[in-house]
Amino acid sequence: MEVGFIGLGTMGRGIAANLVAAGHRVRVWNRSPRPGAAPDGAVLVAQVTDAFAGDAVLSMLANDEAVRSVVLDSGALAAAAGSGKPPVHVNLATISVDLARELTQIHRASGVGYVAAPVFGRPDVAAAGKLHVVAAGAPEALAAVQPLLDAIGQRTWPFGDEPYRANVVKIAGNFMLGSAIEAMAEATALARGHGVAAADLLDMLTGTLFAAPVYKNYGALIAAGSYEPAAFALSLGLKDIKLALAASEAVHAPMPFASVLRDQLVDAIAQGDGARDFAALAKVAARRAGQDG
Amino acid sequence: MEVGFIGLGTMGRGIAANLVAAGHRVRVWNRSPRPGAAPDGAVLVAQVTDAFAGDAVLSMLANDEAVRSVVLDSGALAAAAGSGKPPVHVNLATISVDLARELTQIHRASGVGYVAAPVFGRPDVAAAGKLHVVAAGAPEALAAVQPLLDAIGQRTWPFGDEPYRANVVKIAGNFMLGSAIEAMAEATALARGHGVAAADLLDMLTGTLFAAPVYKNYGALIAAGSYEPAAFALSLGLKDIKLALAASEAVHAPMPFASVLRDQLVDAIAQGDGARDFAALAKVAARRAGQDG
Amino acid sequence: MEVGFIGLGTMGRGIAANLVAAGHRVRVWNRSPRPGAAPDGAVLVAQVTDAFAGDAVLSMLANDEAVRSVVLDSGALAAAAGSGKPPVHVNLATISVDLARELTQIHRASGVGYVAAPVFGRPDVAAAGKLHVVAAGAPEALAAVQPLLDAIGQRTWPFGDEPYRANVVKIAGNFMLGSAIEAMAEATALARGHGVAAADLLDMLTGTLFAAPVYKNYGALIAAGSYEPAAFALSLGLKDIKLALAASEAVHAPMPFASVLRDQLVDAIAQGDGARDFAALAKVAARRAGQDG
Amino acid sequence: MEVGFIGLGTMGRGIAANLVAAGHRVRVWNRSPRPGAAPDGAVLVAQVTDAFAGDAVLSMLANDEAVRSVVLDSGALAAAAGSGKPPVHVNLATISVDLARELTQIHRASGVGYVAAPVFGRPDVAAAGKLHVVAAGAPEALAAVQPLLDAIGQRTWPFGDEPYRANVVKIAGNFMLGSAIEAMAEATALARGHGVAAADLLDMLTGTLFAAPVYKNYGALIAAGSYEPAAFALSLGLKDIKLALAASEAVHAPMPFASVLRDQLVDAIAQGDGARDFAALAKVAARRAGQDG
Repeated sequence: MEVGFIGLGTMGRGIAANLVAAGHRVRVWNRSPRPGAAPDGAVLVAQVTDAFAGDAVLSMLANDEAVRSVVLDSGALAAAAGSGKPPVHVNLATISVDLARELTQIHRASGVGYVAAPVFGRPDVAAAGKLHVVAAGAPEALAAVQPLLDAIGQRTWPFGDEPYRANVVKIAGNFMLGSAIEAMAEATALARGHGVAAADLLDMLTGTLFAAPVYKNYGALIAAGSYEPAAFALSLGLKDIKLALAASEAVHAPMPFASVLRDQLVDAIAQGDGARDFAALAKVAARRAGQDG
Repeated sequence: MEVGFIGLGTMGRGIAANLVAAGHRVRVWNRSPRPGAAPDGAVLVAQVTDAFAGDAVLSMLANDEAVRSVVLDSGALAAAAGSGKPPVHVNLATISVDLARELTQIHRASGVGYVAAPVFGRPDVAAAGKLHVVAAGAPEALAAVQPLLDAIGQRTWPFGDEPYRANVVKIAGNFMLGSAIEAMAEATALARGHGVAAADLLDMLTGTLFAAPVYKNYGALIAAGSYEPAAFALSLGLKDIKLALAASEAVHAPMPFASVLRDQLVDAIAQGDGARDFAALAKVAARRAGQDG
Repeated sequence: MEVGFIGLGTMGRGIAANLVAAGHRVRVWNRSPRPGAAPDGAVLVAQVTDAFAGDAVLSMLANDEAVRSVVLDSGALAAAAGSGKPPVHVNLATISVDLARELTQIHRASGVGYVAAPVFGRPDVAAAGKLHVVAAGAPEALAAVQPLLDAIGQRTWPFGDEPYRANVVKIAGNFMLGSAIEAMAEATALARGHGVAAADLLDMLTGTLFAAPVYKNYGALIAAGSYEPAAFALSLGLKDIKLALAASEAVHAPMPFASVLRDQLVDAIAQGDGARDFAALAKVAARRAGQDG
Repeated sequence: MEVGFIGLGTMGRGIAANLVAAGHRVRVWNRSPRPGAAPDGAVLVAQVTDAFAGDAVLSMLANDEAVRSVVLDSGALAAAAGSGKPPVHVNLATISVDLARELTQIHRASGVGYVAAPVFGRPDVAAAGKLHVVAAGAPEALAAVQPLLDAIGQRTWPFGDEPYRANVVKIAGNFMLGSAIEAMAEATALARGHGVAAADLLDMLTGTLFAAPVYKNYGALIAAGSYEPAAFALSLGLKDIKLALAASEAVHAPMPFASVLRDQLVDAIAQGDGARDFAALAKVAARRAGQDG
């Protein structure tokens, strides 16, 4: 397929490479020039409108502001709508439910297909083509881009016709991730205070009852006290928790764990740990207990 | 080995049966008479002192009060200490760190060996002999009872010489379990408010990033809204969270997630759900969001 | 003075009347037509630009969106800037710190004086001219409008040159108000559970240690269980708590009480109490305890 | 009247002196010898049984453990019960609801009158005889000791026949005090982050909406950052919050503010501030925001 790809950050690079590897013709574009960021075999284009064309365009942008800027304010979507055969837009980003709903309406009005397909997985998982893709959108649009989703992930999890619901699932999942980290952080501070080493505690628990990828990955970082370089920055974790808080308020759902996460993450940022890995949340629990963590 | 076993509740019955199955000679005792509770092949004795004898005695009691009453106030420990060859006492219960420390001192003073060996697993896991056993105590005592621990669990995780540290690990693990349930509860309320069914959300997340036993087990209960009969009652969950709060205060470790859990569990009990499964915590998040959960 | 007044809600009406009573010539404007809302002696004008003129214009609008719409998007500020002698704009609204900073820059760039002057007091206090006014802005602008502030309040509390700081103080104060209500709510549920009537508890405490206006006013509502009509709606309380959370995140200040308030207020709204008085927050604590509150 | 007085701490000394000043004959006793602690005109006795006699005995002890030790374990109550004419015991301490209920039963069984009369006020207020006394107990016992309560306080607030209800009111009030401090702490951190000095913020708010004694007293300490010497130690504040949490669990009342207070106070103690004034809670909010507070 003829595919555009927008956003060559740590996640986007690996995803784009997998599209190339699957035999698609890929034009890539990035907001800031990143020499060498384009994967081998992809064509780097100078204008976002050149990427927002073809059979489909996948965008992997950092947040709501970036999506607004690149997709809407740039005129890229409007230009595509005015072309003879607009691409289906596959939005891989973790964005707010509000923006997801707005984008759905705007795409529909402009005649451009729209699929929300946020992904679970850290950069190494993206590079390996092993992401879990949560997808929602009109059935025909979803069917059209399924080969692309197959190229970037190990499995696509469909969540129906309404794109924003895929975003809700992604937001809920990231909230659960943050909660798992905080739970390990508090458990570790408790145990350390009583003379049990973090590694001993977490090896046992993440090897048994909590033998799941997120616990193993983040538990290993906490046990090692190793928070740099960040695979997923703590400040992005706060962004996601705020998405959960906003989405929950819209449907009147209290989320006291999300509220605690907000405060612990703000604390971490105040101490200068915003650019460290999300797992550095564990430093807050340790510091508040008067421990070296 | 000659083994005493105290406490024939839902957990104890299966554990005692596995000791019999492994070829040990087992005398069992329970506080309240439970006709038929003694596993085939075990001998039901009338006095706790008759069980607190032999090579080893395992006790599986509900809480601090039960342990105090049965082990200390009954005179069982004192009687064993006065016998020629006291048994090693293996305490399987989830008890407070304070009581764990006190029991260690009392056993040491009385010359009775003491191993703390709290277990992870619900009653069906206990019956299958697949528990994870967290054990700590003097090396020789631990070595002496290892065959018994092998009979009841799939693996023993040693945590050193100080018995109370095994209890800390158990308390930390149960806190993490409660946190996992609450995280799923809030995520589910958020998703449900946006039209995503609990089962769809939890199937995806507990099949991927959170593919761990506790998420799968409790996630299935939440997805089904099925909270009876309780494998592990919500009111016992509150007991364990209170153990975490007490143990954390002793070492000055704030635990904001544990505090949230306390309040959500108290809320659940106020609405009459104390005897339902720990997973019924999810009803609180749903009810607070104005949802049928 | 020649004074424009924008916003004839429950607060604005009383404030405008006090400006008339102090001898000023007042032109009033409201977004939606409110027949009879203009106080006697004031002139109702048809265009917002007619109110945004004279020596000064005071605006009392509901939230950030209303301020943006009426002051910026309407062209009122631009029109005033283009006139020969623009008025000083006194913004009485409770708005976000971000918007306060933005408005300061826009006014400065356009040459229109700007004073932030949010007020403390419920509608009856506004009608009585007894508000406490928190004011910040350029000294000459502040001096120019002081007679107007004197007419609407019992006292002006100056907070320096930077307008946004007055908004910070207002946000901090409303957060403390919400905290006082929640504290009374929890204390009341605790006491009621033990057989102590809400009125008995609150009469004692708000008559002694907590003998302050907010405790007496809101305590009386909680004791009476009387939440309608709302002098200050619970949903506006949530708006203010969200302003506190946003302002605190900007300076990396965790606010766990504000986070609890968010969740309790969201809970209240989910149960249909958003239009009741802020004091209806007490229903959440009662309901969660299984009490009729 | 012939009065015994037990407990010559910072509060007790002033209270005992006021009893002497009112013309009563006072015998005083303290657990640890405190040379010079007995007020002029009082008689220091060597045995607690010598103080637990006469028309009435007032005890002002630190916590549940001290009350159990001095009143029950010492045999003082039993000795008084066995005398011809036992005194009415007035318990001024802040104790748990559970112990309050137990003491009521024990006194009743022994035939010794019992009044719970916890007091509000810091040591300087106690010395001035201006305490607020919250009293509950059998009407005849209460009437008998009213002259003594009049001597130590500015007003007695009766809460009926059941002594424990007075303790509930005291616990609820101390929880509200802690909440007021935390609310000021968070508001101050928010404002400070935006360039508003703590003193400016708190002067305004505690001079207007929050013009109540506790806000003025503790607000002044926070504004000055002056936490030593402690009039009421932070670690005692945590004790009282734990009483609130225990009492609330007994009646199934969630108290999320109390839970936050627990964690903030534990944090403070971990940083070494347990012996500083309760107002040092404000250091936690400041430190977590990365501020010097």
